[in-house]
Amino acid sequence: MEKQKLEKMIDVAMSRKSADLVIKNCKVIDVYSGTISIGDIAISDGMIAGVGTYDGPHTIDAGGAYAAPGFIDSHIHIESSYVTPEEIGRLLVPCGATTIIADPHEIVNVCGIKGMNYMLDASEETALDIKYMLPSCVPATPFEHSGAVIDAAAMAEPLKDERIIGLGEFMNYPGVIAAADSDLDKIMAAKCAGKLIDGHSPRVFGKELNAYAAAQIHTDHECATVEEMEERIARGIYVLMRQGSACHDLVNLLKGVTPFNSRRCLLCSDDRQPKTILELGHLDDHLRICVREGIDPMTALRMATLNAAECFRLYDRGAIAPGLRADIVLLHNLDDFYVKQVFIKGRLVAADGKYLLPVKRVDSGPVQNSFHVKDFSENKLKLNLKGDKVHVIDILPGGVVTGKGTAEIRRDSNGDFVHNPEEDIVKVAVVERHQGTGNVAVSLLRGYGIKEGAVALSIAHDSHNIIVVGTSDSDMTYAVEQLIAQNGGIILVKRGEVKEAMPMPIGGIMSDQSGEYVERSLIRIHEAASSELGISDSVEPVMTLCFMSLAVIPELKLTDMGLFDVTKFQFISLEAE
Amino acid sequence: MEKQKLEKMIDVAMSRKSADLVIKNCKVIDVYSGTISIGDIAISDGMIAGVGTYDGPHTIDAGGAYAAPGFIDSHIHIESSYVTPEEIGRLLVPCGATTIIADPHEIVNVCGIKGMNYMLDASEETALDIKYMLPSCVPATPFEHSGAVIDAAAMAEPLKDERIIGLGEFMNYPGVIAAADSDLDKIMAAKCAGKLIDGHSPRVFGKELNAYAAAQIHTDHECATVEEMEERIARGIYVLMRQGSACHDLVNLLKGVTPFNSRRCLLCSDDRQPKTILELGHLDDHLRICVREGIDPMTALRMATLNAAECFRLYDRGAIAPGLRADIVLLHNLDDFYVKQVFIKGRLVAADGKYLLPVKRVDSGPVQNSFHVKDFSENKLKLNLKGDKVHVIDILPGGVVTGKGTAEIRRDSNGDFVHNPEEDIVKVAVVERHQGTGNVAVSLLRGYGIKEGAVALSIAHDSHNIIVVGTSDSDMTYAVEQLIAQNGGIILVKRGEVKEAMPMPIGGIMSDQSGEYVERSLIRIHEAASSELGISDSVEPVMTLCFMSLAVIPELKLTDMGLFDVTKFQFISLEAE
Repeated sequence: MEKQKLEKMIDVAMSRKSADLVIKNCKVIDVYSGTISIGDIAISDGMIAGVGTYDGPHTIDAGGAYAAPGFIDSHIHIESSYVTPEEIGRLLVPCGATTIIADPHEIVNVCGIKGMNYMLDASEETALDIKYMLPSCVPATPFEHSGAVIDAAAMAEPLKDERIIGLGEFMNYPGVIAAADSDLDKIMAAKCAGKLIDGHSPRVFGKELNAYAAAQIHTDHECATVEEMEERIARGIYVLMRQGSACHDLVNLLKGVTPFNSRRCLLCSDDRQPKTILELGHLDDHLRICVREGIDPMTALRMATLNAAECFRLYDRGAIAPGLRADIVLLHNLDDFYVKQVFIKGRLVAADGKYLLPVKRVDSGPVQNSFHVKDFSENKLKLNLKGDKVHVIDILPGGVVTGKGTAEIRRDSNGDFVHNPEEDIVKVAVVERHQGTGNVAVSLLRGYGIKEGAVALSIAHDSHNIIVVGTSDSDMTYAVEQLIAQNGGIILVKRGEVKEAMPMPIGGIMSDQSGEYVERSLIRIHEAASSELGISDSVEPVMTLCFMSLAVIPELKLTDMGLFDVTKFQFISLEAE
Repeated sequence: MEKQKLEKMIDVAMSRKSADLVIKNCKVIDVYSGTISIGDIAISDGMIAGVGTYDGPHTIDAGGAYAAPGFIDSHIHIESSYVTPEEIGRLLVPCGATTIIADPHEIVNVCGIKGMNYMLDASEETALDIKYMLPSCVPATPFEHSGAVIDAAAMAEPLKDERIIGLGEFMNYPGVIAAADSDLDKIMAAKCAGKLIDGHSPRVFGKELNAYAAAQIHTDHECATVEEMEERIARGIYVLMRQGSACHDLVNLLKGVTPFNSRRCLLCSDDRQPKTILELGHLDDHLRICVREGIDPMTALRMATLNAAECFRLYDRGAIAPGLRADIVLLHNLDDFYVKQVFIKGRLVAADGKYLLPVKRVDSGPVQNSFHVKDFSENKLKLNLKGDKVHVIDILPGGVVTGKGTAEIRRDSNGDFVHNPEEDIVKVAVVERHQGTGNVAVSLLRGYGIKEGAVALSIAHDSHNIIVVGTSDSDMTYAVEQLIAQNGGIILVKRGEVKEAMPMPIGGIMSDQSGEYVERSLIRIHEAASSELGISDSVEPVMTLCFMSLAVIPELKLTDMGLFDVTKFQFISLEAE
């Protein structure tokens, strides 16, 4: 802040000068003391100058609405919403979000630092204040090809950027606990830069958790049980309670919130698809759930504001007090937390569910054209099996954890798999798309329910190669080709014809369209998956498939390098004993 | 931290390597969740590696004692204890203090940055971790001569020192509220350095408090009422609840502590003399008071540990958790908080009230010989009054705030004041000692109760010129001369003879001896003040006198430049209308 602005802010606080804006007639929520006072909020250069009785030439009447600090989502992957930073701002701000802590793990896996820079640039075009964590695990595992490798040396430069406030979720917790050299180097890079490190440690307890905490891991958003939550808090790790489109941990974890430990508890989305945002909202939804589950509104609001600001050391926000950013949410009440108006840095940016600013988009050229597939042809999908007994990836309910199954299949004279309509087993392939290795790994998937045609995605965690599944090699091939032609995204093919598609030209993982477009497209895709391809309604065709390559979640996954047994931590042959 | 230490800490957490020390069999206090677990604490290179079940070649059995995080005094002036940093460590650590936030306002007023550097150097010789705030108001007012002027430009360099974590109490709150240029420059200097600013805003409310908070003032330790406390917390200002030798605000303020606002409440001493420390303790005494007043022990402990660490952004401490400093206090119980053993950075440094390390002292040469008095003689104490009616400084109960009184006095033929044994009015003089200005200001004091002789001090807030009071010019003169000869401190003179004295060679405000020596000396001085000089027991002879020059506390005070009416904010004549 400049001295002139400081001087003006003091003058405005004292009513010696007019405020840029006075929000009059608020029930001002004081998250420090959990009390509410009736008053006005005077704003000077985007900062709160005073709370009390103010007037001036520029006023907005809050009409007695509650004034809460802007909400802070403590952990979100923007890419999981399939939209860009500019668009996520348009979607989230009307729900009361004024700050999000985003981990651009997906785009950086595809585009490296170029992807990071694109996200930083795009964030400048939204009122939402997006703070980034630099992805810590790119690639997520050494068992796949991603678009980039970010080692400790590559972290030094981006960690200097003040918009990057730390290292993203350190998924390689086994590496940290083992004190693996490359992981220690990354931790040291963050420490040397004075930055935080987000955690990711599902079901890690005891000495392992001590080790993880000793390594300066600051948060965890992977708690699913009160037991996990309590042990993390005791070890000094903040717990980010997750309520996303895929994972719904909040209700469970709220049982573990106490008056004593609540300051170490935050709220986060992790993943939040446009459909969820448009139907349920964002942190306003978290707050509704908190209150419904018996948390008092002040404690809930603190988890969405002050606690997050403290955890992430964002000292210029988290409350309504002089000298802080004028990030303010006007709420009709503290039951359903209906958002009336949202101010960011003192500017009215959303009202009654609508974002009020134009959505300008930065040039996404540098992260377009991210497909570098070498020599792909139908031939690469052929198998040459020596016997009928094979390993299959078994889809399990939930769609992320898989089983390692075996099956007897039919082969043709070349040893290739022959699809049997009586059995729900189909080919699945991962086509490397970043480095032009020409890698194509083929395996078999059971339980996806597809009757005819093929589905291909360029969203395939975490390296986002192309994943394709189908009943015929020709449809699978056509799906891959057309997916590349449309610059990635999602495609459904049947008998050589595209049945439905959503292009995602940005890194092959984000649409350049609106959240509403994404939602409508997904609805059409889900319908076509059912009506055209016969995929059963019990399987989410996109989400399920995009996790089939995530080689850190048990038990059997497929990367571009082959079939990977996560439990054994090694590649295995498709042929079973 | 180096990578090797990180690696070792992780290995110790996992029990792959032996801890440097295991404190076994503790009731480990988890200040994050307010719970207690039975276990061991494993230490690696001064840091906590793990809490749980550990063993190793080096263990200490806590015998089931409570293990609390080390206590943090959030605001203290070491000089007010009349001892050096090395000695304050010896006194405070056995009481459980492992960190103090010290504002060396007094020595810097005398010696400038040289004084700051001496304090920094001396702090290296104690186990106590002393974090400093750079004094913000040197001199405290423009109405006196101090030993240094620290403007914003002079702050830039010291603010780079990582042991200096901010600007000390910004006493010139009228300047901040008025947005005075020189004060804004100081605030900007702190902000540019990314450092905090401590506050000092007694009885400031409403828009003035908004303005003060808007200026990024972070704390206040001057609250005396719940009303002050609540308004500060609401404005984002941390409240440091004071219990010192002079001010006892804690009991009052504890009435304002709630489960919601307690995280914004800390404990501090401000001033704590050796007598108080030796008789009552330090933060252990604060904790006893908290519990006696109905605060639950966990909340009390958080105010002494985690809250202070958070407030002052000392992320490496404040709890017992992996990756934090092994600053640990073993307590017999949570009622009287009797301190059994104290560990700082994993080293046992105090047990059963005794400091276990040798007290090495740094060279205090640079801050000795701080007396630069020009041309002082008895003649300078003479008055030449035109009439009998004069202003007198009236000592009021409490001894800090004074009254502006008038009196009819006797004069000799030269117009000089003649002491009347029937009236409790005596001469008081301030002798400038820093810059050799030759300034001597003489006035009259009522209510000190001295019957014969003189008292001189070189402790005279905040500039620490020489202040002297007495019934005869000759005793006053001798007292000043002998005070200079002994390098400052306290001296009592009667009929040309020194009756009692305590030299304070360090800046004229600190003894180079032990806390016990200081306490014994003060007892002898108090006895002699009563028995030899006839000062009534209702007046504290040293503390009362040393505040008579503090030109920021109403109503009438004497600086080396003259008699100052604090309410009118101007010098006035000794002669009354």
